[in-house]
Amino acid sequence: MAVGNVDFPEMKPVSGIRLGTSNAGIKQTERDDILIVEMAEGATCAGVFTQNAFCAAPVHIAKEHMQNSPRWLLINSGNANAGTGQQGMQDAKASCSFVASAVAGEENKVLPFSTGVIGENLPVNKIEVALPEAVSNLQQDNWTKAANAIMTTDTFAKGASVVIELDGHPVTLTGISKGAGMIQPNMATMLGFVATDAKISQTLLQQCLSLAAEQSFNRITVDGDTSTNDACILMASGCSTAAEITADSENYQLFSKAVMDICKRLAELIVRDGEGATKLMRISVEQAESNEEAVLVGKTIAHSPLVKTAFFASDPNWGRILAAVGRSGVVEMDLDKVEIYLDDVCIVKNGGRAESYTEEQGQQVMNQQEILIRVILARGTVKQEVLTCDLSYDYVKINAEYRT
Amino acid sequence: MAVGNVDFPEMKPVSGIRLGTSNAGIKQTERDDILIVEMAEGATCAGVFTQNAFCAAPVHIAKEHMQNSPRWLLINSGNANAGTGQQGMQDAKASCSFVASAVAGEENKVLPFSTGVIGENLPVNKIEVALPEAVSNLQQDNWTKAANAIMTTDTFAKGASVVIELDGHPVTLTGISKGAGMIQPNMATMLGFVATDAKISQTLLQQCLSLAAEQSFNRITVDGDTSTNDACILMASGCSTAAEITADSENYQLFSKAVMDICKRLAELIVRDGEGATKLMRISVEQAESNEEAVLVGKTIAHSPLVKTAFFASDPNWGRILAAVGRSGVVEMDLDKVEIYLDDVCIVKNGGRAESYTEEQGQQVMNQQEILIRVILARGTVKQEVLTCDLSYDYVKINAEYRT
Repeated sequence: MAVGNVDFPEMKPVSGIRLGTSNAGIKQTERDDILIVEMAEGATCAGVFTQNAFCAAPVHIAKEHMQNSPRWLLINSGNANAGTGQQGMQDAKASCSFVASAVAGEENKVLPFSTGVIGENLPVNKIEVALPEAVSNLQQDNWTKAANAIMTTDTFAKGASVVIELDGHPVTLTGISKGAGMIQPNMATMLGFVATDAKISQTLLQQCLSLAAEQSFNRITVDGDTSTNDACILMASGCSTAAEITADSENYQLFSKAVMDICKRLAELIVRDGEGATKLMRISVEQAESNEEAVLVGKTIAHSPLVKTAFFASDPNWGRILAAVGRSGVVEMDLDKVEIYLDDVCIVKNGGRAESYTEEQGQQVMNQQEILIRVILARGTVKQEVLTCDLSYDYVKINAEYRT
Repeated sequence: MAVGNVDFPEMKPVSGIRLGTSNAGIKQTERDDILIVEMAEGATCAGVFTQNAFCAAPVHIAKEHMQNSPRWLLINSGNANAGTGQQGMQDAKASCSFVASAVAGEENKVLPFSTGVIGENLPVNKIEVALPEAVSNLQQDNWTKAANAIMTTDTFAKGASVVIELDGHPVTLTGISKGAGMIQPNMATMLGFVATDAKISQTLLQQCLSLAAEQSFNRITVDGDTSTNDACILMASGCSTAAEITADSENYQLFSKAVMDICKRLAELIVRDGEGATKLMRISVEQAESNEEAVLVGKTIAHSPLVKTAFFASDPNWGRILAAVGRSGVVEMDLDKVEIYLDDVCIVKNGGRAESYTEEQGQQVMNQQEILIRVILARGTVKQEVLTCDLSYDYVKINAEYRT
C-alpha cells in the first residue's frame, strides 16, 4: 500500500543510457519482467551490493564483472536466483552470455541482477527467448517501462529524476528502485539503478554512490531482513556537455548532493511501499555520541514489532518506544535525560511521560499518515535518521501467502 | 493461544514458602492481581533482572533490597510501574512499606515486582487496601492461585514442579512464570518465581539461577522486545530435611540440573503462550565456533518476520531461513557448508536446496504444531537452542488493540 505521495515523476532521459524491456513470463505473463540497460562506450559505473553472507549468484557475478568497465545491465524480476548453488552461478553466467550474443558485446561486461522468490532455479531459456525483443526496444525514454519491469511485491513503480547545472551545462540524474519486503539494506538496497550523463571517473562515482547509499538505502527498514540480492548501481555515460567532474571541486559537491537526493527519494519510496504499510515513520535520533549509536537506537525502534503495531493502531504508546531505546544496547545510557517527541509533541521527559503531555495531543499526531519520531539522547551532537513503516494485518497476509 | 501441551501440573508445596493473593482491581476486577510470597526466616534468595537500560522502578528497588536477605515478594499485574520517573520509585517503595505493615516486617526486606502496561502510575491505594486479604490468605498450597494472579496477556497459567532426592531426603522445586509479549529476556525473563526447600547458600543459589536463566529464559524470544520489568527469583527456604548443599558436590549437580529443568519448562511455556502463536519453533544451531555465534544465528532466525510469517502459513520457505543465517553477522561464514533441517528433513545443503528435498516432505513437517529447525554451521563444536513462535494475524491484533 502506498503511504503518502508516491507519484511517478517525469523521468528525464539520460543521454548515453538506453533501456529496453520485454516479457519472459518468469513468474507471470501480464507485464514485462526483464530489463536491459545499455551504457555508452566510455561510461563509468559504480555499485554497492548486499552484505548478506548468503549472497545471490547474480550478485557474485555482477561484483566480478564490475572490474571490466561494464556496458550492460540485465535485470529480471520474479526469481532471485539465490540459494541455487553452482547451478545458480551457471545460470547467471548464461544470462550474461545471452546478452552478449544479442548485442554483439562481451559477456564479462554484463552485470546481472535478479529479484523475486529465493531458492528456485532461474528459467534461463525463457530469458534467452525474450532478450532479443528487449534489445530491439532499447531507447533513452524507456524509464517508466523499466521501473515497472523490475517490480515484485511492489504496488507502484518508483522513480526520481533531476537536472542540475554545472558551469551552465545541464546534467541529468534519473533513477529507479524496487522493493517492499526483506528490506533492511546493508551497504546497498534492494535494486536501485541511477544513471547520469555526467562525465566522472569511476573512483569519484563510487565515492558519491557509497556516501549516498549509506545515508539513504542503508537508513531504511521495513522488516529488518537484509536481502540476498540488494544492489544499487550508478552509471555515468559522460555524454553531457559539462566538463569532467573532478575531485574536491564545487561541481563535485553539487553532483554528489544530487546523487544523495535521488537515492534518498528512491529509498523513501521503498518504505512508502513497505509490505502492508499504512504509515511512514521518520525516526530522528539526535544528540547521539556517534553515527553508530544513533543508527542503533533508530533501528531498534524501527524493528520493534510492538512499536510498529502500536503505530498501525494509531496508539501513542510511548512506553514501547522508550523500552526500545532502553534495550538498544547503548552503553551507559542515562534514560532520565532522554526526551521523545511525536512531531512537535513532547511525550517523554526525564524518563517518564512529559508533564505537559495529554493523550489527545498524542492521538492527533498518531492519526497522521506520516509521523516524525524525535529521540533526544543528550549524549553528543550527532543526528541520524532512519525510515520505517508500521506492521499491519496485511504484512502478515502478504508474507504468509507469498508463495501460494 | 496455547501451542502444544501446556497443562498446569500438580504443584508440590514448598515447605517454608507461603503464598497469598487478592484482588486490587488494578486493571480488571475479575481475578486476583496481587500476590505476596513469604519466605521462612533464614531463607536465601537469588535473582536475575532485566538488562534494559530503561528499567522499571520496582526492578531498581528489588535489586537494592536483594542485599538485605529479603523475606517477602510483592507482585502485581496490570501495571508495570515503568516510565513513571520519581513517582514510580516512591510508589514502589510505598508498596513495600504496606507489606511491611501488614506482616510486621522490614520494608527493605520486601522485593516488589510489577507487570502490565508501561507509563501509568501504580494505583498504590488499591494495593494498600487489598494487601491485608492477601496476607491473611498466606498458605503453602496457593501456587495455582499465584500463577493466575501474575498473568497479563497470558492465556494460561504457567507452572512447573519437581521433587528430587538428595541422600535419600526429598527436596522440592516449584515455580511459576508469566509472559506472552515483549519477550526477549536478557539475563532474566518476564516474571519467574521458583521456590525450593533446599538448604543452600545465597552464593551457590545465585550461581544455579544465573546458569539456568542463561540457558532457559535468555534463549526464548517472542518478538525481540526486551521488557523493562524482567525478573526471575529463586528462593530457598532451607526447610527440607536434606543437608545443606555445598559447592562442587554431587548434590549441587543434582540440584542445579533440577533448577535448570524447571526454568527451561517455565521459559518454554512463555513461548507456547506467545502472543498470537500457532507454532513453536525450536531452533538448534550446531557446529558453531562459540556460544555467542550460535545464539546470534538462532536469534536472527527467530526474529525474522519473514521466517515467522512463513511458519504461520506452514510454508517451507527455506530461502528465508538461509537469508537470515546469511545476514546474522557471523564473520567469514561459508554458506556453502551450511546445512538446514526441518525435523529430519534436510532442506538445505551446499548453499542451496538439498537434492533429496521435496516440497511434500517440507510441507509435512510444516503442518506440525512444533518444529525443530536445525542449522549446521560446520565451523566448530558448539550447540545452542533458541525457542520462538510464529507471527500471525492475532499477534498484530493483540498488540494493536492492547490499550483499547
